Amino acid sequence: MPLKFKSVPGSVTAPKGFLASGVFCDIKRLGTGKGAHRPGKRDLALIVSEAPAAVAGMFTTSQVCAAPVKISLPRAKKARAQAIVVNSGNANACTGAQGLRDARDMAAIAAGILHLPANDVLVASTGRIGVVMPMTNVKKGIHAAAKLLNASVESAHHAAEAIMTSDTRAKEVAVEFKLNGVPVRIGGICKGAGMIQPGMSATGARPAAAPALHATMLGFVTTDAAIEPRALKAALAEAVAVSFNRIIVDGDMSTNDTVLVLANGAAENPVVKTGASNFNLFQAALNHVCLELAKMIVRDGEGASHFVTIRVNGAKSFADADAAARAVANSSLVKTSWFGGDPNWGRVLAALGYSSARVVEEKVDLAYSAPGGKARLFALKNGQPTKTSFAALCKMVAQREFDLHINLNLGKSGAVIYASDLTEEYVEFNKGDISDPASMGG
Amino acid sequence: MPLKFKSVPGSVTAPKGFLASGVFCDIKRLGTGKGAHRPGKRDLALIVSEAPAAVAGMFTTSQVCAAPVKISLPRAKKARAQAIVVNSGNANACTGAQGLRDARDMAAIAAGILHLPANDVLVASTGRIGVVMPMTNVKKGIHAAAKLLNASVESAHHAAEAIMTSDTRAKEVAVEFKLNGVPVRIGGICKGAGMIQPGMSATGARPAAAPALHATMLGFVTTDAAIEPRALKAALAEAVAVSFNRIIVDGDMSTNDTVLVLANGAAENPVVKTGASNFNLFQAALNHVCLELAKMIVRDGEGASHFVTIRVNGAKSFADADAAARAVANSSLVKTSWFGGDPNWGRVLAALGYSSARVVEEKVDLAYSAPGGKARLFALKNGQPTKTSFAALCKMVAQREFDLHINLNLGKSGAVIYASDLTEEYVEFNKGDISDPASMGG
Repeated sequence: MPLKFKSVPGSVTAPKGFLASGVFCDIKRLGTGKGAHRPGKRDLALIVSEAPAAVAGMFTTSQVCAAPVKISLPRAKKARAQAIVVNSGNANACTGAQGLRDARDMAAIAAGILHLPANDVLVASTGRIGVVMPMTNVKKGIHAAAKLLNASVESAHHAAEAIMTSDTRAKEVAVEFKLNGVPVRIGGICKGAGMIQPGMSATGARPAAAPALHATMLGFVTTDAAIEPRALKAALAEAVAVSFNRIIVDGDMSTNDTVLVLANGAAENPVVKTGASNFNLFQAALNHVCLELAKMIVRDGEGASHFVTIRVNGAKSFADADAAARAVANSSLVKTSWFGGDPNWGRVLAALGYSSARVVEEKVDLAYSAPGGKARLFALKNGQPTKTSFAALCKMVAQREFDLHINLNLGKSGAVIYASDLTEEYVEFNKGDISDPASMGG
Repeated sequence: MPLKFKSVPGSVTAPKGFLASGVFCDIKRLGTGKGAHRPGKRDLALIVSEAPAAVAGMFTTSQVCAAPVKISLPRAKKARAQAIVVNSGNANACTGAQGLRDARDMAAIAAGILHLPANDVLVASTGRIGVVMPMTNVKKGIHAAAKLLNASVESAHHAAEAIMTSDTRAKEVAVEFKLNGVPVRIGGICKGAGMIQPGMSATGARPAAAPALHATMLGFVTTDAAIEPRALKAALAEAVAVSFNRIIVDGDMSTNDTVLVLANGAAENPVVKTGASNFNLFQAALNHVCLELAKMIVRDGEGASHFVTIRVNGAKSFADADAAARAVANSSLVKTSWFGGDPNWGRVLAALGYSSARVVEEKVDLAYSAPGGKARLFALKNGQPTKTSFAALCKMVAQREFDLHINLNLGKSGAVIYASDLTEEYVEFNKGDISDPASMGG
């Protein structure tokens, strides 16, 4: 059973010693047309630790990665950092040498105002690809955001709003727990909506078992826990592996996926180290925060009307279980059938059949349940339809959230993927509005 | 330049010595609801050679393959066959031992009526997965179809209609050309619409360079050419590799994909053999017929409003070129942007970035042209946006058909993929109608 963690209000400013803000500086500029992307809405955020903090980052493994990823990746490899500057409305991707200069300048501007070494500021962007950053606006925005930096719940919420693109709501979470008797907090914000099948690594190199991965998702986590940088990097890699890297909205991986965590030690707990007794508890708490944020991304996926947890078991290897779950989650036919409330297990079986996972039709069990529910409604046993009525299956799939259980009965490995369905609203949203080039998210 | 072949009217009965028919026998039975699948429309076809014919087949490489595939695959490996029985409305997939018996019986019933060895009749099915075949209706249908067997253009058209599922029109082609001075014909019919990313092989084993492949597409080709069975098998493998295996509608591979060819030698040309001088010409003609049919599938893809030919060049290997083109063709974000007429090359670059192909952002050239057109409108050179106006790019992408040229500038290999866009109509169609379980295609 996963541990329970006490929720507390707010997000990135819930831990001690963190400030945040979010402002509007019109980064889209042209964003006034019919399809205008959140005109007048906040589009630049700052997250700052009052003291130098341990840092860790996970980044898109796409070969076409945005300038801010190229700047932040080496900075996240260091032991320490202190601030993050983020914008929405422009991905600063496919922008060449100018893009690199702009990303570096964004960090340098923030560093100048905050009196920090430039290398201690990380940067992230999300929005349309291939458009040069409007640096005059960005500079104004950073100055405005710096003035508003604040430890309030409201300021953190403004930061959460400022990183949104096609998200319909801000995504925030914060928990408190005790490490060696000392209260510690972890808080986080994220954005998602489209281009969601992240597959991040700390180096940008694709992990062996990783999928072809895709999304623009950004996540920023803060904690006042005292933790060694090496332990923080290990914990974030594990947390991302079981959360953000396990969600699929549309199977497109972004050029900009980034998750960053800052840990400033303000809680003054005994320092968390890999192998120490308090590491596992910190890991569990970080996993919880990342998974809660990741699930918010799926639930708020572009046009999503269903949230389906695909639980594959009985695979010969984790890679097989993962490939099987991702094939189902990425099948347009499966995703549209969920939208229609159609328990079309034939399409699920077809997706398993063409996945790279070893599958033997005659061995597959397939069942539905309420989220996390023990009572399973079997549609297939040993590859054969059961006597479960079609109406009963329809009733289950008509729920907004349900679990799909697949047992390949070939081995002992399992994998979970959190997926949304494919709806007309997704298509309507993503076909863009060519009357307004700036309205189209990357 | 591809050779030109003279079109002739009709399809599978255009070559000498072939008969065909298509009838309605209500294979869906329950197909009377709101979403009913072509109620009253033909759903069973026969294609028969008057004399024993050389045979070759290519089949889905899915691990979950339908009963008719299991029956027809070994029969297509033989030297000779004489008839094909096909139904739409029921895929006879995931139907266990009963499904195998039913597929074998379908062939046996046809063989009995036609006085042929049962092994000389091949069988194919398409439709909903996981429903047992209504054999009483099927038997009636085969008897009715056998009575109507005819060499007319109309009968072939009836056969083409009878294999349709969500197709909006019958797909037929026939050509005539000379082999060693003797007139020879090749004709064919096919069906597609959804679950389209075929990746067939002659053995059901996935070719090394093949994608995860998906579709229900059926194709049936006849020719009066005299050709050695071994040469026919080689020619079909090559023809499918450059046609049906290069199309993508929705990236879902079917349990039922099948292409069969019968060659009865009625034209009395000098026998085509591998390595003989007439082989290349036969190959070119078969490629032409299969490619024409394959393109019809993409143009008639479920809800498709655009037909895009993706031409990748400059890849380090064919596998890389193929992976790059398929990543673009399968990206939901790229496909929806085409639907919206949005030249969103950022999404194309993002898809290239997460593909398994080696890609260096700074080297990529990207251009649009009219179909097969020489005049290219460059959006990107060396990974940098060109000065081509957004309006000019929009005008190109607004065309119903256009070519997307991608040069990775890393090597000498290329690949072509024919793709459709992703529209609201696709989602509307595939969400199904749960008031009518039989209405939902597999």
